[in-house]
Amino acid sequence: MSQKSAGPEILKMIELIAKLPGFGPRSARRAALHLLKRKDQLLLPLADALADAGQKIERCNTCGNFDTLQPCAVCQSTSRDESVICVVEDVPDLWALERASAFRGRYHVLGGVLSPLDGVEPEDLTIGMLVDRVKEGGIREVIFALSATLDGQITVDYVKDQLEGFDITITRLAQGVPHGGELDHLDEGTLAAAMRSRR
Amino acid sequence: MSQKSAGPEILKMIELIAKLPGFGPRSARRAALHLLKRKDQLLLPLADALADAGQKIERCNTCGNFDTLQPCAVCQSTSRDESVICVVEDVPDLWALERASAFRGRYHVLGGVLSPLDGVEPEDLTIGMLVDRVKEGGIREVIFALSATLDGQITVDYVKDQLEGFDITITRLAQGVPHGGELDHLDEGTLAAAMRSRR
Repeated sequence: MSQKSAGPEILKMIELIAKLPGFGPRSARRAALHLLKRKDQLLLPLADALADAGQKIERCNTCGNFDTLQPCAVCQSTSRDESVICVVEDVPDLWALERASAFRGRYHVLGGVLSPLDGVEPEDLTIGMLVDRVKEGGIREVIFALSATLDGQITVDYVKDQLEGFDITITRLAQGVPHGGELDHLDEGTLAAAMRSRR
Repeated sequence: MSQKSAGPEILKMIELIAKLPGFGPRSARRAALHLLKRKDQLLLPLADALADAGQKIERCNTCGNFDTLQPCAVCQSTSRDESVICVVEDVPDLWALERASAFRGRYHVLGGVLSPLDGVEPEDLTIGMLVDRVKEGGIREVIFALSATLDGQITVDYVKDQLEGFDITITRLAQGVPHGGELDHLDEGTLAAAMRSRR
């Protein structure tokens, strides 16, 4: 776009929006226009919300969650079971488990899964921090809630090795038919796992 | 998401991002996380860029373009032909023509096309402003660069009626085979139009 038709402010905005996941130059222009047309209802409130989030939110030094508190609200909560740690790949997984009210313990955000192909090594994840938390004591169970993929399995195996020798129970999420899942739409791996773990 | 796992700042940010075109709750959460992980490189610069754009950019009172200048840079430019107005549906179309360096006159942003089905009436568009611009004189040609759709055609016909009686030439973009277009991927309407307008 030439400088003649759109000022540097618009170009800057489009350039930054285009860096969001799922955006390209065209959809970023569309989003920018959407924002400009809704200046008071959306553009300025979003600018404020982003600035606010950027100033106040940081990673929890204990578990890797994002929050305004340090340590985060989950780690500070006295109503949660601090002897159980649920290991997740990333913060949205933590959010998903919280939305499901599926867990009332503490979390540990790994920051990804090991992936030899993508060059993700143990040092890239927060495995050392997890081992330190277990070393400090008071933990009786570590639950792995990682993706049911090959990389997820490799990660579980690696971290389990690191946690060997501690007196803790290591578990992982059950695999099976998802709620509302129709059998003939499920892949064979899921069906086989569900059959093996039948109860 | 429960208040326990993500503070109001994150929820607010996700809620506003979800209002952008193409976003739902899940992709908004993903974008929010992407931003939080890149606070200094992306989140804070985007907050600044949005605030900057929101404060400085407004609609041009003459043509409807978005710019920091009033009237906009295109309307102010002395190196452009002020006797030709290209009528576009919305600002991205103006940007697209500028990127193509396809036009060196002035623009008029209609703000949409007439659509009886969607309830878009003439009063919802800037047709009156266009007629006023022509009425003021000095215009020799109005080019319609609207979508080649039924609504686009209805709009061209309606605006042409409003401009009747003025001593101006009314033209529209040529229809035909797009640059690089393979014939067997084109619809029949395009092929028929390209054949009729062959030269």
